[in-house]
Amino acid sequence: MAKNFSTRAENYSQWYNELVVKADLAENSAVRGCMVIKPYGYAIWEKMQAALDKMFKDTGHENAYFPLFIPKSFFNKEASHVEGFAKECAVVTHYRLKTSDDGKDIVVDEDAKLEEELIIRPTSETIIWDTYKKWIQSYRDLPILVNQWANVVRWEMRTRLFLRTAEFLWQEGHTAHETSDQAVEETLKILDIYATFVENWMAVPVLKGLKSTNEKFAGAVDTYCIEALMQDGKALQSGTSHFLGQNFAKAFDVKFLSKENKLEYVWATSWGVSTRLMGALVMSHSDDQGLVLPPKLAPIQVVIIPIYKKEEQLSVISEKVLQIKKSLENKGISVKYDDRDTYKPGWKFSEYEFKGVPLRIAIGPRDLENNTVEVARRDTLTKEILPIDGLDVVIEKLLEDIQLNLYQKALKFRTENTYRVDNWEDFKIRVEKGGFVLAHWDGTGETEQKIKEETKATIRTIPLNNPQEEGKCIYTGKPSKERVVFAKAY
Amino acid sequence: MAKNFSTRAENYSQWYNELVVKADLAENSAVRGCMVIKPYGYAIWEKMQAALDKMFKDTGHENAYFPLFIPKSFFNKEASHVEGFAKECAVVTHYRLKTSDDGKDIVVDEDAKLEEELIIRPTSETIIWDTYKKWIQSYRDLPILVNQWANVVRWEMRTRLFLRTAEFLWQEGHTAHETSDQAVEETLKILDIYATFVENWMAVPVLKGLKSTNEKFAGAVDTYCIEALMQDGKALQSGTSHFLGQNFAKAFDVKFLSKENKLEYVWATSWGVSTRLMGALVMSHSDDQGLVLPPKLAPIQVVIIPIYKKEEQLSVISEKVLQIKKSLENKGISVKYDDRDTYKPGWKFSEYEFKGVPLRIAIGPRDLENNTVEVARRDTLTKEILPIDGLDVVIEKLLEDIQLNLYQKALKFRTENTYRVDNWEDFKIRVEKGGFVLAHWDGTGETEQKIKEETKATIRTIPLNNPQEEGKCIYTGKPSKERVVFAKAY
Repeated sequence: MAKNFSTRAENYSQWYNELVVKADLAENSAVRGCMVIKPYGYAIWEKMQAALDKMFKDTGHENAYFPLFIPKSFFNKEASHVEGFAKECAVVTHYRLKTSDDGKDIVVDEDAKLEEELIIRPTSETIIWDTYKKWIQSYRDLPILVNQWANVVRWEMRTRLFLRTAEFLWQEGHTAHETSDQAVEETLKILDIYATFVENWMAVPVLKGLKSTNEKFAGAVDTYCIEALMQDGKALQSGTSHFLGQNFAKAFDVKFLSKENKLEYVWATSWGVSTRLMGALVMSHSDDQGLVLPPKLAPIQVVIIPIYKKEEQLSVISEKVLQIKKSLENKGISVKYDDRDTYKPGWKFSEYEFKGVPLRIAIGPRDLENNTVEVARRDTLTKEILPIDGLDVVIEKLLEDIQLNLYQKALKFRTENTYRVDNWEDFKIRVEKGGFVLAHWDGTGETEQKIKEETKATIRTIPLNNPQEEGKCIYTGKPSKERVVFAKAY
Repeated sequence: MAKNFSTRAENYSQWYNELVVKADLAENSAVRGCMVIKPYGYAIWEKMQAALDKMFKDTGHENAYFPLFIPKSFFNKEASHVEGFAKECAVVTHYRLKTSDDGKDIVVDEDAKLEEELIIRPTSETIIWDTYKKWIQSYRDLPILVNQWANVVRWEMRTRLFLRTAEFLWQEGHTAHETSDQAVEETLKILDIYATFVENWMAVPVLKGLKSTNEKFAGAVDTYCIEALMQDGKALQSGTSHFLGQNFAKAFDVKFLSKENKLEYVWATSWGVSTRLMGALVMSHSDDQGLVLPPKLAPIQVVIIPIYKKEEQLSVISEKVLQIKKSLENKGISVKYDDRDTYKPGWKFSEYEFKGVPLRIAIGPRDLENNTVEVARRDTLTKEILPIDGLDVVIEKLLEDIQLNLYQKALKFRTENTYRVDNWEDFKIRVEKGGFVLAHWDGTGETEQKIKEETKATIRTIPLNNPQEEGKCIYTGKPSKERVVFAKAY
């Protein structure tokens, strides 16, 4: 299967777009900016969901579901929140269609106009805090640790599959606490969960840190984030965890009777990761031969392909394969045996290579004689002959190796593409070439904005436990006490 | 915890509404007709999803995700489909808000009007068949066996929590096949999965059968359904599986090259169950003391409550409880140990009784001496003293008993409330009182419509493998060959 598609060197952006479609992850739909997530792509997302959901539940969170619609007036209650989201809202104004007067078409029924417009949720803080008002009276009702898996809509003008779509899938956690400290602790706990997931499951190293005021969430006191570096040297924000202070509690008048018998506003957090992670996954590991998937998220971890000429050879091979398959499945490994006779082995080899299946086992008559198989790794594109005896243990180990190797490779890439820069000329050149650029900054939003206008680079994060050092802002020369991470970003 | 709530005899409808809210399953939101599914209710829904999802996957189905929005023109392509859904559509007309001229309010930006309105999906046949057109060229691309878990919106005028809400959660399967036979086989396979799920997990007996032409899905050739009988004698349609023929393939021009090298329209099915099942679950088993949940879907299967006066008693009890808890969890039983000191045992007893937890274990100092516990069943409200030795095996057996008992009880209720009626006067009286009424019908939509207008009863289903017998239509007296199932319905 010769997939005609661009290489990364030719055109990274096109390589990504084509890969996502041709590897059957997702495609554009008839609705502008909205994607169809295809079964193979959705199977990866389900594995992401399962891992994250377990981590949330293991730390005491419960799932719930809140309405898709938000009354327009709710947005107005938190000033910076409406500012942040008003410009990209899908608005429902009517609740009925009717046949046109000439009977030929179907049109909006103007008699069915809503009294108040409804916004499709771009995020759910407002509808959720309107609900929490009913749930919270006393400190006994706290904390509330709730998450929801949902679709949200932000009417972006420029969209790209997974990275930026008008509708996307995500989880959004919304928690309520007695004290500021407890809320901050929750915010950081979730940041750790996100980092653990992205590093250990997706095999993508991340920086953990704080967003600058310019880049923080509309309505947050502090936004924490994890930032990853893609192969083209651009940063991708992979998850955010917000300390909301009492902003939404005040906007929706949510107070509780404290242990000290005082009425106080509730403290809040919210946090989310989305199908954007699918984009990060693809861009971190894949190569010019197609997808490369980390074993922990691969829908098929091992594919087995029979090599045969005659029908009777296939039946002998299949007998052996089913034993191998069973021994692997007993170890919790997901295996596909592709014995279709409508495609040739060579076609299958490149098909599964393109789809990023971590390990391919080929087995033919000679292998049967020798009691061996040929095992090919997707990450290194290397092959070796292995004995069938004890194969399950070897395969299990290989999958772990691949998982680790992908992480190490991505970490090496990031290390090699992280730079310390101390003057404005170097900064402009470096940022243009890509990578994380560690530089001093005077701490003001104005300077950040000017740097963005001149270079398109933004402050990706102010790392947690950031080393403190005296320095001068690369733009203004004013004093600075730490370096922050600049990059151009998705 | 004295929950003031109506009894079934007083007011069944109010009993249901109050129970759903007070048992923390769901509540109404600030958006008309849209519900908030609370964590306890959502945990039940997650168990339903997990069981169904496994059954779908075990029969070769894959999950995917399609857009929330459907271009208005898509509806027009299938005539009966638009007829069925146009009157209850939420319509997106704009994609931006702005600050009003006086700066005081936020309003819809009239400059951001969509060229074509978007409908929030009430069901996804149209957007999916527009997508399948791209996926299907040859018989090799078939079958497509895809399911999606999603939210949908139908702008119902009268809403009730879970039973009928403007937004609800569901799964919708959409499959594509080479032949009519294969599509019909798929339709019936899914009907069996639905029936198995509702009977074996929800412990609710169902009738499987065909819908009459009046009651079938807008766009289907045949609609199959499962129908359950609620405690008030009203029927509840619990799932539908549609044989769509080539209707949507023709509407969206989806053809494939057959094995015989001919271009043919694709055959289709679609099928769904929704959060409505939550309503069926509540109404089938619960009583005047609150929820009754079948063990297979209960978020907490066993609750353990310590009875003590002094702090040192609690620590000894807790030590024993943690052993019991572990032995139960080793059997895959979900256990909650409620050792909160902020609530008394009596309060806890009625709390978990109200929440429908299948088994309650109480353990106090005297139990410790005797090495026993007190075990209470929620379904029968009976208690017994049981030895701690071997308790895990007994509890496991009790949970199975409860599951079976709930089903048997519901089946007995249905049997006792199923009637054969042979004349119009009896029919009117019987239908008014409730229950499934088996009666002859002349097979016409006009007669069905008249019966509905005069009695509010509809044909719930024409059972599969329905016994054939000569008879006369209860309304027109015309000849009939089989009885069909009438009832008033939710």
